[in-house]
Amino acid sequence: MKLIRDPIHGYIEISDKMNKIISDPYFQRLRYIKQTAMAYMVYPSMLHSRFEHSLGVMHLAREFARYVISNSGLKDEEGLIQMIALTGLLHDIGHVAFSHTFENFLLLANQVYGLKVKEEGKKTHVNYGTYLIENVLGSIIDKEFTEFYPDPVKFITDVLKESPRNYEEKLALSLISNYVDADRSDYLLRDSYYAGVSYGRFDIERLKRFLVFIDGKLAIYSKATPIVEQFLLSRMYMFENVYFHSVTGVYNAILSHAMVEMLEKNIISLPTEPKDFLQLLDIEIYSNLDKVKEEFKNAIMFRQGYKRIKYDITGKCLVKFNEIKDEIYEDMKESQGLFLYHEFNDVPYEEKEEAVYIFDGERVEKLTSVSPIIRSLSEIKKAVIAYSSKAERVAEKYENVIQECKTLGP
Amino acid sequence: MKLIRDPIHGYIEISDKMNKIISDPYFQRLRYIKQTAMAYMVYPSMLHSRFEHSLGVMHLAREFARYVISNSGLKDEEGLIQMIALTGLLHDIGHVAFSHTFENFLLLANQVYGLKVKEEGKKTHVNYGTYLIENVLGSIIDKEFTEFYPDPVKFITDVLKESPRNYEEKLALSLISNYVDADRSDYLLRDSYYAGVSYGRFDIERLKRFLVFIDGKLAIYSKATPIVEQFLLSRMYMFENVYFHSVTGVYNAILSHAMVEMLEKNIISLPTEPKDFLQLLDIEIYSNLDKVKEEFKNAIMFRQGYKRIKYDITGKCLVKFNEIKDEIYEDMKESQGLFLYHEFNDVPYEEKEEAVYIFDGERVEKLTSVSPIIRSLSEIKKAVIAYSSKAERVAEKYENVIQECKTLGP
Amino acid sequence: MKLIRDPIHGYIEISDKMNKIISDPYFQRLRYIKQTAMAYMVYPSMLHSRFEHSLGVMHLAREFARYVISNSGLKDEEGLIQMIALTGLLHDIGHVAFSHTFENFLLLANQVYGLKVKEEGKKTHVNYGTYLIENVLGSIIDKEFTEFYPDPVKFITDVLKESPRNYEEKLALSLISNYVDADRSDYLLRDSYYAGVSYGRFDIERLKRFLVFIDGKLAIYSKATPIVEQFLLSRMYMFENVYFHSVTGVYNAILSHAMVEMLEKNIISLPTEPKDFLQLLDIEIYSNLDKVKEEFKNAIMFRQGYKRIKYDITGKCLVKFNEIKDEIYEDMKESQGLFLYHEFNDVPYEEKEEAVYIFDGERVEKLTSVSPIIRSLSEIKKAVIAYSSKAERVAEKYENVIQECKTLGP
Amino acid sequence: MKLIRDPIHGYIEISDKMNKIISDPYFQRLRYIKQTAMAYMVYPSMLHSRFEHSLGVMHLAREFARYVISNSGLKDEEGLIQMIALTGLLHDIGHVAFSHTFENFLLLANQVYGLKVKEEGKKTHVNYGTYLIENVLGSIIDKEFTEFYPDPVKFITDVLKESPRNYEEKLALSLISNYVDADRSDYLLRDSYYAGVSYGRFDIERLKRFLVFIDGKLAIYSKATPIVEQFLLSRMYMFENVYFHSVTGVYNAILSHAMVEMLEKNIISLPTEPKDFLQLLDIEIYSNLDKVKEEFKNAIMFRQGYKRIKYDITGKCLVKFNEIKDEIYEDMKESQGLFLYHEFNDVPYEEKEEAVYIFDGERVEKLTSVSPIIRSLSEIKKAVIAYSSKAERVAEKYENVIQECKTLGP
Repeated sequence: MKLIRDPIHGYIEISDKMNKIISDPYFQRLRYIKQTAMAYMVYPSMLHSRFEHSLGVMHLAREFARYVISNSGLKDEEGLIQMIALTGLLHDIGHVAFSHTFENFLLLANQVYGLKVKEEGKKTHVNYGTYLIENVLGSIIDKEFTEFYPDPVKFITDVLKESPRNYEEKLALSLISNYVDADRSDYLLRDSYYAGVSYGRFDIERLKRFLVFIDGKLAIYSKATPIVEQFLLSRMYMFENVYFHSVTGVYNAILSHAMVEMLEKNIISLPTEPKDFLQLLDIEIYSNLDKVKEEFKNAIMFRQGYKRIKYDITGKCLVKFNEIKDEIYEDMKESQGLFLYHEFNDVPYEEKEEAVYIFDGERVEKLTSVSPIIRSLSEIKKAVIAYSSKAERVAEKYENVIQECKTLGP
Repeated sequence: MKLIRDPIHGYIEISDKMNKIISDPYFQRLRYIKQTAMAYMVYPSMLHSRFEHSLGVMHLAREFARYVISNSGLKDEEGLIQMIALTGLLHDIGHVAFSHTFENFLLLANQVYGLKVKEEGKKTHVNYGTYLIENVLGSIIDKEFTEFYPDPVKFITDVLKESPRNYEEKLALSLISNYVDADRSDYLLRDSYYAGVSYGRFDIERLKRFLVFIDGKLAIYSKATPIVEQFLLSRMYMFENVYFHSVTGVYNAILSHAMVEMLEKNIISLPTEPKDFLQLLDIEIYSNLDKVKEEFKNAIMFRQGYKRIKYDITGKCLVKFNEIKDEIYEDMKESQGLFLYHEFNDVPYEEKEEAVYIFDGERVEKLTSVSPIIRSLSEIKKAVIAYSSKAERVAEKYENVIQECKTLGP
Repeated sequence: MKLIRDPIHGYIEISDKMNKIISDPYFQRLRYIKQTAMAYMVYPSMLHSRFEHSLGVMHLAREFARYVISNSGLKDEEGLIQMIALTGLLHDIGHVAFSHTFENFLLLANQVYGLKVKEEGKKTHVNYGTYLIENVLGSIIDKEFTEFYPDPVKFITDVLKESPRNYEEKLALSLISNYVDADRSDYLLRDSYYAGVSYGRFDIERLKRFLVFIDGKLAIYSKATPIVEQFLLSRMYMFENVYFHSVTGVYNAILSHAMVEMLEKNIISLPTEPKDFLQLLDIEIYSNLDKVKEEFKNAIMFRQGYKRIKYDITGKCLVKFNEIKDEIYEDMKESQGLFLYHEFNDVPYEEKEEAVYIFDGERVEKLTSVSPIIRSLSEIKKAVIAYSSKAERVAEKYENVIQECKTLGP
Repeated sequence: MKLIRDPIHGYIEISDKMNKIISDPYFQRLRYIKQTAMAYMVYPSMLHSRFEHSLGVMHLAREFARYVISNSGLKDEEGLIQMIALTGLLHDIGHVAFSHTFENFLLLANQVYGLKVKEEGKKTHVNYGTYLIENVLGSIIDKEFTEFYPDPVKFITDVLKESPRNYEEKLALSLISNYVDADRSDYLLRDSYYAGVSYGRFDIERLKRFLVFIDGKLAIYSKATPIVEQFLLSRMYMFENVYFHSVTGVYNAILSHAMVEMLEKNIISLPTEPKDFLQLLDIEIYSNLDKVKEEFKNAIMFRQGYKRIKYDITGKCLVKFNEIKDEIYEDMKESQGLFLYHEFNDVPYEEKEEAVYIFDGERVEKLTSVSPIIRSLSEIKKAVIAYSSKAERVAEKYENVIQECKTLGP
């Protein structure tokens, strides 16, 4: 057993079996992928990586599993708990350079630059992850975890692909990939710790003790409803103020364009075999910035040269911009990223099948039916425009569009 | 005025003049130099950089200056406060890749590998810093700060070189580079925050209110003596458990050897002109690891392959190892860093001229004369040995030396 | 100048003039009035007093005043800042034994037991306070603060009575008694600290920096809107989970009935002259519990003997109970408090004149017009029933009412 | 199972059996005994009680027991863990009004006022405690805990009286009453939380994981030696700055003299039968202050009228004062407590049988042999003088003694 000191959870206990996975280079590589890409341009010490986040998710998934199994009167299978922890550990194993910004770069390459790259949105890191689990880590997993569960690789990949076969996988899925889960719990607590903001905090000690699994659904005892509200509000605030901060967005957008130029020049390529994943880390991108437009390097590394039109594009303006999107894309492509338009959107909470349920001891109810606050949450949607001094003319054009649409009201 | 959110100090206020310096690429580059080099191998989220530390030192230096000026009945010169803050901001501007590990690499290149590189120990980053201030940042500094103080560049470099000309510079020096100062206060609080340990905390709110400048010396009111003790103990614990953690030491040593190989192969070179400082960042080293021994890359990036002889070499053993140092150095050179010996040492507190004084309202006394705890502190000195699997034979030899010297007692 | 260590605000600085007020027995007496009455039956260490809360409000009122004056371009009058701080210090000076529970006891004596006591709801402590300020503390206040402001006593009492004469008093009122103010800021942070819950926290460091006074209204810069939301949500959660916890409510209700019995038996009486305020503290009530029904003492001191009908009466049930209120009151009186019915209600936010405004740099807008979350907040209203074992029969009757109304839906 | 929210430990889990004890009036009474007596005169919110401390000790004793049993390879007996937790819960059950100040009052009554009261120093609350356990709580304990352990009452009283019969009781003793134990761990963390100081914090999460029981001794793995140092230093700082703060000392001394007067006037008496313990709470003393000298009431309740000679009597002065102690005692008695002399002393660490051991994996060593810092700790010993304005003449006399002895050096 090994103890790792963690600012969020105190000590994280690592079993010898789990340590076998963690020590593998394909897991260690996560140290070199920043959790929140360019957010450090606004919150300077958000330099933390997917590595510690993954350890944190493993820890919380294990805690959640313990409490939920006990609260639900399920058989106390240590094996199942281990499998859920392991799945938590590996849920982000497929991320590459700059995490979600890489996924955004693929989208951009496709939609704006017309490059024929395989693009699957936020599923990209999931697909990469299942590839790595099946082709690289599978043998260690089989060796170490078969005693806990038959075909552990299948268990993990089923859960990551959100195709659970049985109630164990369903439980794992509901604890790791849900509106209130171990993944989000860890990143809210962790990202707010590194940003130094209080938005992201909520009472995790209470939350984990009030989880229950009923009729194949994860529910929370009604006594803890306020924590679920806090949780979803925390997430909303983190999106509004940190993840979707317009300056963060600008630098992530520049980074995406820089990666497109690298792809076009064959400086980087998409991963096709395992060892590519050991290479495609943040460092790889930084160290190749010399080979693309110098405006990109100066901006990405030293926060130089790009200006932002100081107005968040929302509401009616956003509708207007959507109408002229083709033109915008054309301008972006034309200016080769010296002019940028970047959209953000996230849904704080949506009542889908895998939604959050509330259990009052008798009935299981949907969260929105018990919480007016949650009902008041709506999609976060905005956009931002930025440009290098070389692209002032095109920026001026959009500045005018904004001035006009602002008069239309919110 | 700009506000930067900081996990340690809440909000850091940045004046427009100060922001001119901070926005310069030569300051922004500090974002890419990890504060604590390879400590992240043990404390995964110690990925924070010299950038936020420098902001923190500026903030604390300003706070310290305000209180000390008020407590000492000095004339309340906003200009002096600004100069002290600016000096705090720039105290680490000369650091390059991996901070102090770079200085260790120069030592190693010299002493073990016999390379003729200019080596000035911990003064290296000070010299680089004064070079950058005089040759790059000087013009902005002159433009923005001359209204506060005549020849501001001279003020800063005098202080950094520890050659104060007058009482203002002496005050600045005593607040920025001392046993209890803004620099150490920030790094203890900050490094312990990212490590997630409680060692490094002390009551900064109280400390800053009890500073006084008497007869050209920085003193602390005797009511706050316990905080000074806590401060020095905090520092000692951070050295013992974090900075001098033997695993951290091993990876820093490997990194030093890797940099020597890069130097020998002309992959990197020492900075000779300003723009070199924009290049010589952590990224530069990581991205060149492909060109040196693969044992180095595997170790430095993925924590693979090196073993540590699990015994901290101290006391009589350390004496023994010092006697055979030439032989050890020879073996290191021979094995090209596949066998490593790394020494740590630091003095928690030494009663020198710039020592910490205690003021009881009547007399100024030396800290050791009032605190038995401080008198009990002694030099921290230990060493560690590690080796790659290819260097097992030489490791075995030293394993025997240890077995033998261990019998000699502590 | 004196420093008082405070867990919430670090150090609270006390000027010599302010210390004159604080040292007076009529201020010191606040040490013996618990801030949250019987909440310690649920959160054991909520034993903190109005004394430290009052210091905290003074501190925050001063901080708020400094920032708001600077942000609003008002003349930097240290005198006004001092007056606002002093008003904050004294805002709760009129509280007597068990704070608001005393006000509830007066209501109960009047409405249920038909005693002819002067009853002014939550204004009681305000009236007592202005009485003490005018008749006891006035002379010190005049002596110490007239140099800051003409007729300082009038300033304070105008503000506490919510009848501001001029913009200075209006500013003071808006900072001390408002939906987002120094009073609520302190009690949310403080009460949650002692309860050990995270509900009550919000980013006070950011909030205070974004206050502005425009057109005689307190507004918050729109960048800080999320904090205002957090603030109001914090308050709502604190009400739901702490202040209106049904067990807390039960014990506060028992205490009110016990005080009615004391009043009927002339063991206590309402304060009529200054020195009565030195006597009418929590201790006075506790030490007279021997003279009333032993069920009261056993319950109030040792948590013995009362049972709660484990159902929070809300919605349709609450309507039902309101219809039969006369009967309930009769049963309470009849059983002499061995059967209890206790109502709670609070409005998290209401758009009245003294509401919270948001300033986007151009326009001042109402909070509800910019925040759907705030619009979703509604009145908190519930009731709880409890009874001693001697009053089981009457309890049974209401148990049946509940069973019936529960079937009506929420 | 019940959860109690606690600011120090998060949630404290209470089993149904344990809840039977906690719900008893003889346990609930601890709510009305302040943990740190008059410390609230300096740290206003130190109003917390023995009740929550006792819950905290139960919690930590249980945690310590779990880890130590697992680390030491002892049989995992849930029964033993429960017994250790229960003993922790009851370790302070014998405290009466104002905790240790009551013990000090007995000493004063005896030594200075010549009253014949049974006086057993700090053993008083232990003796009272075993009395209550044997005569009141015994029957519930027997009923609920006999299934865990034969004769549970004997187990608890053996441990509290420090006369362990077997290894189980020895283990309990070493975890509950030792230099590093659950009792001290809780009070350091708790008292510093309410004081708002950072002195008392140490890494409890790490400490509890590194306990081991070897050869009938509690030891700590050498990796955690720094925490033991921090722990003992924390305790030293809390004594110097909080418990032995000279103002706190003055008010505790006044309180002791007031209680002597109450005893002499038969207003209070020592407890002789169980129900006396339900009465002898802080409230009892406060509510009888009207019947003793008004100087006492004014001081104790409202911080009025006593002056302190602003010099801590230590070193050579303390020796001098010890020489004239009879005269001082006479003056105290003569002035009936209007003149006071109060001594403080505590030993941070002493190497006795029940000392703290360090285990390096091979040998068990004494703490002082491995830690120079601990060797540097010495007894804390000082005294303070205070007087009411009515006793100025006698105060003057001792003022002169101090002036004289101060010239002798420290």
